[in-house]
Amino acid sequence: MAVYTEVSDEDLKAFMARYDLGEVISFKGIAEGVENSNFLLQTTDNNFILTLYEKRVDPKDLPYFLGLMQHLSSHGISCPLPVVARDGKALHQLCGRPAVLISFLEGLWPRRIQPVHCAELGRAMAEMHLAGQSFEMSRENNLSRSGWRPIFEACAERADEVQEGLAQSLAAELDFLDRHWPADLPTGIIHADLFPDNVFFLKDTLSGIIDFYFACNDSLAYDIAVCLNAWCFETDNAFNITKAGLMLQAYNKVRPVTSAEFEVLHILARGSAIRFLLTRLYDWIFHPPGAFVKPKDPLEYWKKLRFHQGVTDSSAYGITRP
Amino acid sequence: MAVYTEVSDEDLKAFMARYDLGEVISFKGIAEGVENSNFLLQTTDNNFILTLYEKRVDPKDLPYFLGLMQHLSSHGISCPLPVVARDGKALHQLCGRPAVLISFLEGLWPRRIQPVHCAELGRAMAEMHLAGQSFEMSRENNLSRSGWRPIFEACAERADEVQEGLAQSLAAELDFLDRHWPADLPTGIIHADLFPDNVFFLKDTLSGIIDFYFACNDSLAYDIAVCLNAWCFETDNAFNITKAGLMLQAYNKVRPVTSAEFEVLHILARGSAIRFLLTRLYDWIFHPPGAFVKPKDPLEYWKKLRFHQGVTDSSAYGITRP
Repeated sequence: MAVYTEVSDEDLKAFMARYDLGEVISFKGIAEGVENSNFLLQTTDNNFILTLYEKRVDPKDLPYFLGLMQHLSSHGISCPLPVVARDGKALHQLCGRPAVLISFLEGLWPRRIQPVHCAELGRAMAEMHLAGQSFEMSRENNLSRSGWRPIFEACAERADEVQEGLAQSLAAELDFLDRHWPADLPTGIIHADLFPDNVFFLKDTLSGIIDFYFACNDSLAYDIAVCLNAWCFETDNAFNITKAGLMLQAYNKVRPVTSAEFEVLHILARGSAIRFLLTRLYDWIFHPPGAFVKPKDPLEYWKKLRFHQGVTDSSAYGITRP
Repeated sequence: MAVYTEVSDEDLKAFMARYDLGEVISFKGIAEGVENSNFLLQTTDNNFILTLYEKRVDPKDLPYFLGLMQHLSSHGISCPLPVVARDGKALHQLCGRPAVLISFLEGLWPRRIQPVHCAELGRAMAEMHLAGQSFEMSRENNLSRSGWRPIFEACAERADEVQEGLAQSLAAELDFLDRHWPADLPTGIIHADLFPDNVFFLKDTLSGIIDFYFACNDSLAYDIAVCLNAWCFETDNAFNITKAGLMLQAYNKVRPVTSAEFEVLHILARGSAIRFLLTRLYDWIFHPPGAFVKPKDPLEYWKKLRFHQGVTDSSAYGITRP
């Protein structure tokens, strides 16, 4: 639940004076999202989302994120489009924070994943990967393998408070991933946080992808691995091979999964599980008492990791060897 | 910041099937409000607010609240109108909670109060009081004088943690109010929580009043007293007689303040200050660690109370004796 910054009437008025978008008729904080302050802003012309970037987003990354949304949008991907003000710029300041007005996307994120959602997701993700190939800016994935160990080390001493033996298991997994992490896979722009609340649907059709603030350049198949974890497990943490198969087959139709990617998908899935496990563990241990945002359960990702540790062949994810 | 209940796709679909309002195209939790879960729901037909009543609202009071909104709306007051489903009812169940779909009101609540807002508020409050005279249902104000002492007693032992000597000062004030609380003032429907975030404006014109979930039958002037506290102090807790005068004069033009009301307005203002001081003190002392909602500062209302304790004549509020 996220509105960290209170925007005054005068500040909003001065901000909106930069645009030609009609009169503001409604302005409401949105409870979703945990990184930034988001408002639904309605004018006599249209609906928009106003985002204020809070401290977890590095301002120097914003040209990449905004440029990516513009690029993907102009290449037919349905995603929010930053609105350019009269001065020709999309990025401004509001209440001392970088702020941007983006187009409003219709659609609802699925609270309960159905197989059809996974098929739609696979297709749209592959289209996004292809559209990203011509985007010229670049940003490192700072939550990839080299980013995991520092988070682990910050948590190691207290990890066993969450589950006995967790610190030792995580250390062993990190060692395994250091030895087996694949190189030389096809790379490009990945979303890197393609969770259900970032994907909108109208009825059963995907209507848009939002929240590109973890996007970066990395192995494309790592995005697939994130989605295997985020979309293909049931609430009891049982893996649903039907959903995974539909997602991967739909992906494959748009951008064929390579042999090299097929060989290591389970390694990437273990890495993706470790990534979310570690950031959740960190937030769990270090969230300030009285914080607005309830931390997510890190052990959900422990159970997902355990599943992938048992996988030796990516046919376990519902696709056949290319 | 308030979304306490996660609504699943199936639950929302089943709920909306009761209405003829087009297809749902957007559904977002709203960060404002602390008592209920509120969602902005957009359909192909229109915008609505979906409210799920959480445990702080007594379900047996809902017919009163919903009936009042229908009554005021049909008498020309701009307020949310509960939407009636095909079964002829506005009140239904969703996720095990009473739930209602209400019309969406355009407007923004003022983050920084200007004198013109206070004048508009005075006029609209008086119009609401007049329109309420013909509403036939009745609900006791359970946060009026008889409700204060139990809250004080629950907090008394720990009140001095907030400010030294607070418990003793509050006890003395409650005694004073017991001796001087006025009877026989003109009564009717009051909003009882007419804070700025419950009053919408389009530019400088009041466009609607929301959140009737503290509404009750009580002395009409008590609503004025709540607004003196909520609208007429600056952020440094200095009283602004210009704002109060504009509010009261605008009120007076629609429903003249009686002599009896004029005589005791400072007593009512002390009572209103105690009411919010005590509920904030309770929330401050007893809010669970890690709660979503940051408690509001009770001492803001201590400073307002101190101001009213120094008032002996309601001309201090910017109106002349009737």
